[in-house]
Amino acid sequence: MTSDRRIRFNGFKCSTVAHTTAGLWRHPNSQSHRYKELSFWTDLAKTLERGKFDSLFVADALGVLDVYRGSPDQTLREGLQTPTDDPLLAVSAMAAVTQHLGFGITVASLYELPYLFARKMTTLDHLTDGRIGWNIVTSALDSAARNLGRDDQIPHDERYAVTDEFMEVVYKLWEGSWEDGAVVHDRAAGIYADPAKVHAIGHKGRHYSVPGIFLCEPSRQRTPVLYQAGTSAAGRAFAGRHAEGVFISGQRPDIVRRLVDGVRSEAKAAGRDPRSVKFFAIMTVVTAPSDAEAQAKFQEYKSYSSIEGNLARLSGITQVDISQLDLDQPLEYSDTPGIQGILANFTKADPTRRWTPREIADFMSVSSFGPVVVGSPTAVADRLEQWVEEADIEGFNLVDVMPPASFGDFVDLVVPELQRRGRMWRDYEGNTLRESLYSAGQERIRDDHPAAQYRRR
Amino acid sequence: MTSDRRIRFNGFKCSTVAHTTAGLWRHPNSQSHRYKELSFWTDLAKTLERGKFDSLFVADALGVLDVYRGSPDQTLREGLQTPTDDPLLAVSAMAAVTQHLGFGITVASLYELPYLFARKMTTLDHLTDGRIGWNIVTSALDSAARNLGRDDQIPHDERYAVTDEFMEVVYKLWEGSWEDGAVVHDRAAGIYADPAKVHAIGHKGRHYSVPGIFLCEPSRQRTPVLYQAGTSAAGRAFAGRHAEGVFISGQRPDIVRRLVDGVRSEAKAAGRDPRSVKFFAIMTVVTAPSDAEAQAKFQEYKSYSSIEGNLARLSGITQVDISQLDLDQPLEYSDTPGIQGILANFTKADPTRRWTPREIADFMSVSSFGPVVVGSPTAVADRLEQWVEEADIEGFNLVDVMPPASFGDFVDLVVPELQRRGRMWRDYEGNTLRESLYSAGQERIRDDHPAAQYRRR
Repeated sequence: MTSDRRIRFNGFKCSTVAHTTAGLWRHPNSQSHRYKELSFWTDLAKTLERGKFDSLFVADALGVLDVYRGSPDQTLREGLQTPTDDPLLAVSAMAAVTQHLGFGITVASLYELPYLFARKMTTLDHLTDGRIGWNIVTSALDSAARNLGRDDQIPHDERYAVTDEFMEVVYKLWEGSWEDGAVVHDRAAGIYADPAKVHAIGHKGRHYSVPGIFLCEPSRQRTPVLYQAGTSAAGRAFAGRHAEGVFISGQRPDIVRRLVDGVRSEAKAAGRDPRSVKFFAIMTVVTAPSDAEAQAKFQEYKSYSSIEGNLARLSGITQVDISQLDLDQPLEYSDTPGIQGILANFTKADPTRRWTPREIADFMSVSSFGPVVVGSPTAVADRLEQWVEEADIEGFNLVDVMPPASFGDFVDLVVPELQRRGRMWRDYEGNTLRESLYSAGQERIRDDHPAAQYRRR
Repeated sequence: MTSDRRIRFNGFKCSTVAHTTAGLWRHPNSQSHRYKELSFWTDLAKTLERGKFDSLFVADALGVLDVYRGSPDQTLREGLQTPTDDPLLAVSAMAAVTQHLGFGITVASLYELPYLFARKMTTLDHLTDGRIGWNIVTSALDSAARNLGRDDQIPHDERYAVTDEFMEVVYKLWEGSWEDGAVVHDRAAGIYADPAKVHAIGHKGRHYSVPGIFLCEPSRQRTPVLYQAGTSAAGRAFAGRHAEGVFISGQRPDIVRRLVDGVRSEAKAAGRDPRSVKFFAIMTVVTAPSDAEAQAKFQEYKSYSSIEGNLARLSGITQVDISQLDLDQPLEYSDTPGIQGILANFTKADPTRRWTPREIADFMSVSSFGPVVVGSPTAVADRLEQWVEEADIEGFNLVDVMPPASFGDFVDLVVPELQRRGRMWRDYEGNTLRESLYSAGQERIRDDHPAAQYRRR
């Protein structure tokens, strides 16, 4: 299948009870509280591989949502992003029960030492045999920073400069320290690695000092597949420089299209092929054999939604305590950046409408801030095809709105329909995650990516 | 079986090519270069569980051995502790193929943020359902510190003070933040966790500031089983305060006995039952159906040893470039602490003998600095029984001298002999690692351990 026709899917998860929506864990079929159990993750991985998904993408939440009523009480009651487990540690178990599924894992670089972080990613690329990706996060909530010894949160734009240097260090370790052919494994000569082909990286920068050789021999992909999700101006520029895959969020395809075009321009300005950056829009799908059944399922899911949980989440995102506002008065334009951001998000979708906090919380009930498609497999496939064309994207990050039924429904019902239409592959065509992103044979980072300049020849 | 009769075994590994011995990877049957592959670890875990081992203990090496000839060249040629992968990341895969085996993983606390480190351990305790242990390491080689942004290595004794505060923070997170019963998971009432039972730890110390609540709900063991391996005076006191299991190294049981007695005294001084600290001596076993076959196997293994590799390792440990010395002149007492330490180790075993560097490297060939037992299953069992009595220890850390044959031989030959003698259990009697260490029912840390004071009632 030519890759320009193919729609790609990633499963979107977080190792917590309630990720993007509040209250749905109360549904009798929800298994989201089993995020702590190994079999929850291995079963999930098997389902996604059965559906020929490119990858499982796991978000992370280092901070507790504690703005609503000035405490974490409501988010604890809701299991809303707290408690949360470390997303890297279940990967090897999922790799053991799959052959092709990739794993895009979120790690905040600010709280990592590049010398050890590079080893973590290479270890996972070894253990998965080339199926690891990294969702680069540059920030964290204030509540996280306080507990991580950074109550002086680095200003937003400065964070990208620190992260740029972090990227430089890890590129040097992954691409530049061990040449191809450095590992000889010659039993007769007694040479495991040829020291002439292993190089100290000699990095001494403003934020990081890493003089030595990389601790790990190269893995199949060397640099993991690089994802990014920021959509601020600084975030778009960063994605244009570094991201191979971009996770994007918008209520309508034309809104997403503007973000996509912006990042592609930045990639071009950075000397990269703008089509080499692949875009995945967040999407919630509720499907059933017929449209009527799907609508009934959607309404049933929605009936478990928690308005107060969504207000707590909204407060965490905006950093404004929504409990202090009148829930039934339309939100006014405000100097508060968080409120501006939310209003911009909603007015982009419909400039004429004014939203109250309660209406926003209700809107969030099943799909958070993103779009939701409800319908039979043919209706869903029609809508996804339309999205891909209009937004100029390569695929979707599918929200696991009701684990395990929502991924199961999609794999059983929508995937066969997309395969019939020639819009999904019937099987993986490469072995590594990067080959799923590009095409079979492209295991290593592309030559026009900045990481490639650190290769030795 | 009464636990005082039982001899316990841990498999001792490092995620590298050559761990404690140099050159043996060249043996045609050695699979040690497969440390990068998932199936290497899952097969290993299954072998240890078949042999009813308590746990797999994984060491770590963050620094490159670069003292010998002033470069890492020889250690790279030998695959000697470099390259090395992250030991935490294969655990979930091994947990997925076992039911009872524990995992004692080495992590250097100096390079971890306690808020995130506590989450890693709790995540693994969740995914393994109570089978995780942590080998607390307070130091790293100079070569590691330079790459981790700490070229000002903290002085040895000060390191234990920093680590004591680190322990206080993680105890508060593991034991004190979430009460028992905090997780309600009441779908009808819409309460996942009861905020009245989740507490901010409010830690503000000299080295760490962690005001908030723990990100994770409690795991089965809460605090992972705590191991330690230091044998300096400060290290013994630290082990007496914190360790539930101590890894110990000595060439003869009477030498080990002195170390054991020292740590037990420290434990008693810290208000703990001195018998609640369990000791595991490093041990290499080469076995075969008959003594003659075992001796032949030992000589064959030895023939693959690399003298120069062992000198490079010795240089890394002593921080003295042994290549500058006459290899055939006995080592003299020296002001260099590293040389003093090595001499002390060897003269303890035989005060009359003077050792040359070449003799030391030869001694290290199969068993590193520890003891080696070579013989038939009955001879090995006799010797291990004698060791346990004389050294007053609970068991052994068994070196994986020739993967996968050495653990396989031990499990197939020696374990049944020890079981016949009533010195090894025929099956696990609890579910968690701590129950293996103590007895069924003891999932949580003991009441006389300092972590217990942070519990809320």
